[in-house]
Parts: sequence; structure tokens; C-alpha cells
Amino acid sequence: MSQKAFSRLDIDGLEKRFRTNLINSLTGFKSVSLIATASLEGTTNLSIFSQIIHVGANPPLVGVLFRPHTVPRHTLENILATQHFTINHIRDSFVVKAHHTSARWDQSEFEACELTPEYDKEVSAPFVAEASVKIGLSYVEHYTLKCNETVFLVGEIQKILLPDDSLGSDGFIDLVKAGTMTCSGLDAYHKVQEPTRFAYAKPNQPLERIDKGVN
Amino acid sequence: MSQKAFSRLDIDGLEKRFRTNLINSLTGFKSVSLIATASLEGTTNLSIFSQIIHVGANPPLVGVLFRPHTVPRHTLENILATQHFTINHIRDSFVVKAHHTSARWDQSEFEACELTPEYDKEVSAPFVAEASVKIGLSYVEHYTLKCNETVFLVGEIQKILLPDDSLGSDGFIDLVKAGTMTCSGLDAYHKVQEPTRFAYAKPNQPLERIDKGVN
Repeated sequence: MSQKAFSRLDIDGLEKRFRTNLINSLTGFKSVSLIATASLEGTTNLSIFSQIIHVGANPPLVGVLFRPHTVPRHTLENILATQHFTINHIRDSFVVKAHHTSARWDQSEFEACELTPEYDKEVSAPFVAEASVKIGLSYVEHYTLKCNETVFLVGEIQKILLPDDSLGSDGFIDLVKAGTMTCSGLDAYHKVQEPTRFAYAKPNQPLERIDKGVN
Repeated sequence: MSQKAFSRLDIDGLEKRFRTNLINSLTGFKSVSLIATASLEGTTNLSIFSQIIHVGANPPLVGVLFRPHTVPRHTLENILATQHFTINHIRDSFVVKAHHTSARWDQSEFEACELTPEYDKEVSAPFVAEASVKIGLSYVEHYTLKCNETVFLVGEIQKILLPDDSLGSDGFIDLVKAGTMTCSGLDAYHKVQEPTRFAYAKPNQPLERIDKGVN
């Protein structure tokens, strides 16, 4: 297998679109979800995000990175105004609609892309009815990164909705069964294969494979 | 499909292990890589991380979240001391060794798990020879989050190494071809299927599918 190398000088000299695709591919497979919000006036908004990470289990926290210069600011503005947002996993059945939310629509992306808002009493932001795994969150804090003025925002989980048959007896969610997709680069969506799970690793002992724990 | 719901009260009342598995599954499929560092004295260290996100393409930036209370601090200490680290994608061929780095070894995880350090003149930290996609980074800045004292650290890409035949003419990396895996929850590793790629989305126009752009 022949290896390709890029030094920092090479990277800085790349054509803009090539560099954007390359660098966006380097962080591997990513979580990809629709983030839904509503303004104080009740106008709904839906945006696709792949910069979402686990921050902690207790309290249950999730981090999202917002890129102020390339993504419309409605999502961040709505979260700061209403304190609420939802994260909705993308399934194969509506991946075309999900990607289409990234266009610059004048109306709500729910209407424009024919996705269905769904409400729950514990979170003021809408969920996406078509999604299988859905999380409702409240705002905790945010940091504007000095390096490029992106905004790292942390939310605390207030509500979880998921398909009954994807939840294992040990709390593990079978995301393949739930139909959750992953993405790579800027525009590639992938289905995922069944996992191999390993037990907690100990030194000098062979790794044990464990069952999926799904009921 | 019957739906399972957890309110915040439900979540807080869950058994610890169940809650940890559940919350760690909620952020969907994740980037999973080995982060390699060396101490000032040259002792190498290897740790498995799934909290890695794209921060920007120009300058090329990557973010990593460190959990101070649950993960050994060697990686973070080495980065702060030497200013360098590498991110190495995990392939199926060494996923058992990669998961085994999470055990509490007394010696370097390179030796303990039989993985091979590989050096490049532009980055002082070792790469993992067995990985296909490898990134060398230098420290930029870090933030200790008030919500749970995790540390969000940003690195700037100084070197990229990847298999020649996985790089498309548009800069997109075919991560399926490169053998990169994804993970879910705390302990599940998945292979990924071929992607569907979409063109830049425009309002009121059907989405166009594009080829993978691989040479």
C-alpha cells in the first residue's frame, strides 16, 4: 500500500475545495444529526450537524460545535434565546430530506424538507418525528474558541426518546437496529454494520467479546 | 415501532452502568482513534479516544475532549509538555489491540499491545504504523469545561499520512477503503458501508447524488 504524505506547507497550498474535503474527512466517521430549535416567536428551525460529541454521563451532557461563518446562525441564536434544542439521529429513510436542510431556505426547514415537528412537554424545541433516536436538551454553557471563533456549546439531556427494541438490557443502544447513519467528509452518508463489543480491558488478559445485550 | 421515553428524573434514577452505556450511545456513531504521545523523556503512550471532532479546515484544526477523572492523564500531560500528538484511525486488523490500550498498563501501550511506533521529522510524537490514516498535530489551546471539568483541547494539523488509493481527486478520503472503523457506546466497534454522496444542497431543487471522486 503506497502512502501519501502532506506536510503543513502542502496543506496550506491546496486548492480550497480540495483542502476542505480532505480536512473534513480526517476526523473519521462522525455522528450526524438534525438539530431542531424554535425561536421565541415559535418559528421552527432544523439544521444538520456532524460536530456533536459526548461530554459526560452524569450529569448527562452533550457538546456541539457551531461554525459561525459557514452555517446560518438561527440554531445557535434560538438556543441562546430559548435555552432548548433537540438532537435527532438521521435514518436512511429520510437522509435526502436531512441533507436538503443544509440549503438556504427562506421558510422553516421542517416545511421546506417535509419533516414533521413533534412536541414534548419537557422541552420547548421540537423533535423530528421521523427520527428514531431523539434527545431533548437544555443550554448549559458555551465557549468561543480563540483559534477560529467557532462556538463549543454544552447541553444537558432532559429527555430521551428511542425505539423500544433498540435498547439493550445493559443500557447500550443498538444504533444499527435503530437505523442511525454516520457521515464522513462534508457530504457522504453511510449505513453501519453490526458491531463487535469487548468487555472492560484488563492488562495481561486476553480481551473478552461480549454479546450485544439487546433483549 | 413502540417508543421508549426517559425523562430527566428517570435518567437520574438509572443504575450507574446502565446510564453510562445509554448516555454514551446517544451521540450516535463516533470517530474512534488511537492518540499517541511521548513524554519529555521519550516514553511513549497510546490511548483510545472517541471524543474527536473537526474544528476547522483553514487553518486545519481538530478538537479532542479529555475526561480527567476516568482516563489516565498521560496523554494530556504529554501534549501540554511536548506540544505534539498524533491521531491514528483504527482498522479492523488491529481493533483488539486498540481496545486493549484502554487497560491500565504499567509499560507503554505500544509494547504492551504490540503496536509499532513510527516517527516523522515534523512531529515529535510517534504515529501508529498499523493505522492507515494518521494525523500529526501541534497544541493550540484548551478549555476546562465548568460543567464537569473535562478538557476540550484544540490541535493544529502539521502532517497527514494516508493510503494513496483512498484519496479522491476532490480531496475526499474514502474511509471505507482505508478500513477506518466507527464506534458506538463505550465498547462497540463497527465497520461501515459504502457512502451515498450528495452535491451542495440548493432550495427548491432536487438533491443531486455525486460520485465518490476516487481516482
